[in-house]
Amino acid sequence: MVYKKITLIGSSDESFDDAVDDAIERADETLDNVHWVEVKEFGVEIASVDDREYQAEVEVAFKIE
Amino acid sequence: MVYKKITLIGSSDESFDDAVDDAIERADETLDNVHWVEVKEFGVEIASVDDREYQAEVEVAFKIE
Amino acid sequence: MVYKKITLIGSSDESFDDAVDDAIERADETLDNVHWVEVKEFGVEIASVDDREYQAEVEVAFKIE
Amino acid sequence: MVYKKITLIGSSDESFDDAVDDAIERADETLDNVHWVEVKEFGVEIASVDDREYQAEVEVAFKIE
Amino acid sequence: MVYKKITLIGSSDESFDDAVDDAIERADETLDNVHWVEVKEFGVEIASVDDREYQAEVEVAFKIE
Amino acid sequence: MVYKKITLIGSSDESFDDAVDDAIERADETLDNVHWVEVKEFGVEIASVDDREYQAEVEVAFKIE
Amino acid sequence: MVYKKITLIGSSDESFDDAVDDAIERADETLDNVHWVEVKEFGVEIASVDDREYQAEVEVAFKIE
Amino acid sequence: MVYKKITLIGSSDESFDDAVDDAIERADETLDNVHWVEVKEFGVEIASVDDREYQAEVEVAFKIE
Amino acid sequence: MVYKKITLIGSSDESFDDAVDDAIERADETLDNVHWVEVKEFGVEIASVDDREYQAEVEVAFKIE
Amino acid sequence: MVYKKITLIGSSDESFDDAVDDAIERADETLDNVHWVEVKEFGVEIASVDDREYQAEVEVAFKIE
Amino acid sequence: MVYKKITLIGSSDESFDDAVDDAIERADETLDNVHWVEVKEFGVEIASVDDREYQAEVEVAFKIE
Amino acid sequence: MVYKKITLIGSSDESFDDAVDDAIERADETLDNVHWVEVKEFGVEIASVDDREYQAEVEVAFKIE
Repeated sequence: MVYKKITLIGSSDESFDDAVDDAIERADETLDNVHWVEVKEFGVEIASVDDREYQAEVEVAFKIE
Repeated sequence: MVYKKITLIGSSDESFDDAVDDAIERADETLDNVHWVEVKEFGVEIASVDDREYQAEVEVAFKIE
Repeated sequence: MVYKKITLIGSSDESFDDAVDDAIERADETLDNVHWVEVKEFGVEIASVDDREYQAEVEVAFKIE
Repeated sequence: MVYKKITLIGSSDESFDDAVDDAIERADETLDNVHWVEVKEFGVEIASVDDREYQAEVEVAFKIE
Repeated sequence: MVYKKITLIGSSDESFDDAVDDAIERADETLDNVHWVEVKEFGVEIASVDDREYQAEVEVAFKIE
Repeated sequence: MVYKKITLIGSSDESFDDAVDDAIERADETLDNVHWVEVKEFGVEIASVDDREYQAEVEVAFKIE
Repeated sequence: MVYKKITLIGSSDESFDDAVDDAIERADETLDNVHWVEVKEFGVEIASVDDREYQAEVEVAFKIE
Repeated sequence: MVYKKITLIGSSDESFDDAVDDAIERADETLDNVHWVEVKEFGVEIASVDDREYQAEVEVAFKIE
Repeated sequence: MVYKKITLIGSSDESFDDAVDDAIERADETLDNVHWVEVKEFGVEIASVDDREYQAEVEVAFKIE
Repeated sequence: MVYKKITLIGSSDESFDDAVDDAIERADETLDNVHWVEVKEFGVEIASVDDREYQAEVEVAFKIE
Repeated sequence: MVYKKITLIGSSDESFDDAVDDAIERADETLDNVHWVEVKEFGVEIASVDDREYQAEVEVAFKIE
Repeated sequence: MVYKKITLIGSSDESFDDAVDDAIERADETLDNVHWVEVKEFGVEIASVDDREYQAEVEVAFKIE
């Protein structure tokens, strides 16, 4: 049993929770076996967006093989 | 005045805030003097639960003596 | 183009999201060009407040010159 | 000459050495040019397996192009 | 569901694997619900022992409540 | 031979040395076999005390069994 | 909007700047939306090359979806 | 003799060296006693600029009083 | 309630405790609401001074507004 | 009583344990008072060797004077 | 101008300051050009000594050539 | 095959690349088997020099025996 981890950055104009969910949902589209997620960093983008964009960098672990 | 810190992992199917609260509430059941909490890590368990379980690893500091 | 980063700690009795927003709003009062924010640490103050105070230490980056 | 690094988690019910080998062997199945491996973390899963599962999170570096 | 983590240092005159097992076995004596273990550090004590003592500092996570 | 580590925060209105000693003395009251101590962090509390309170967060390692 | 980050190691016999550029150019060949790059580590390989090979390990972030 | 450190991010479309110099020159405009600089991070902005913008986050230490 | 943190380096030819106090006293001259201090690093300057200069890099947290 | 620490990288085609022992044995050849060893990193070299070479970077502490 | 850094661990039964001085004095015996010292870690040895032995791991930088 | 790593700080009034080369060249004078170099930190000394002195702290790995 081998897992692979990839790093995604999700975003939301609502909350950090939603930013993490955003990354998980994107992972679920192309990966069948997402097992767990580790949050690496939270940030907020302000200057290049209308209001505030909450961002979450996460590592997504999924089973391969 | 001496404090002790213990490490707890709380969880919630709603949000990271609730996962932290879960750990604090568990600490409050057996400890009288919880002073502050430091978040060490956020994660999401996916494969072994029905939906998503938000987890928060925290250090809980309480006064002893 | 040069950015400067300062470190603020915002707080909220509601959630970590609000604690981050609290710091951003304080920065916006005196700074014109806030570009982005990086979360450094989340904590909860318990003993010295009525209930729980969610705290967020953040680095706020703004453009100078 | 450019290398790429991916993160894998191998496992074994015998030892940490075998857990690392498990990840390397999985990498060798799909990659031709594995050059080196860096161990990031060792852990043991206990509750969800029969006995003990030694796990090794590694970064696998391989040549591309 | 709340987990608690404690830090133990196991030892063995044979190998790092055995030093980790040593800590797990000690945890199993007094704890019913050990779920997983994270290795924090490996070291070897030489001067104060006959030969070499392999040591493993680990965090042991167990379910409470 | 297994060691356990706990985290204490000692304090003193004199010096960091005394803050570390404060934590060690508290550990000695309930533990028979304190072997060594590692300093994790030094800080000074100012606002909530009369003058300055030097604080030392330490890990105390003691032999169990 | 979701970003993915991959880890590449570029090299150059001239400078660290060129080693970073090398990794970016390789990323640009297969990825359409490279947004930013973070330098993780600089090193110099000496023994296995004719002169000196400057190396840069970078994380490349690109937009997916 | 007391020093203060501030965090600046300089940039250049040429090199990391120039990005560090950019931050130093900005500091020199308003500070009389810049003593030394520590590089915290190098990065490259790509998507929002014409070509590539090399960025350097640095801590600038200057004497006060 | 928002706090700001600044980084100062105090010094003393006597001890690390005095170097920390040196930074706190300098902060107290211009800031009304210093709440706490975190020690980031201790060092000793030798070559450019007569004897030894103990230095302490600290983060000073004070309440704004 | 003063200790000095040096950094060695031992290797073995068998296991990480043997790679650590390799470094300790090399230290014992020229040093009389090796007291303890701390493991800094494990890795596996693959491309430049026949099979796999397990490597261990360790800090070796020995008494001087 | 090139500097070299070595790692020493000094000790004292009095204080951390003295433990750092102990390492500096040992360095001064064999090195002519000690320029500065960085403290890496403080600890206290208890079980193997009569009372308490304060220890300081430091990096000593000296000019070579 | 055992490697040893030493820590050097090279400098240059031109660039960080040259500061790293400076350290490598110094290492080559007394060591036969320099294999690779890892950059630990970049800094710029300003106050005690005429203009700016770029500094690079590196770990130099060389084969022994």
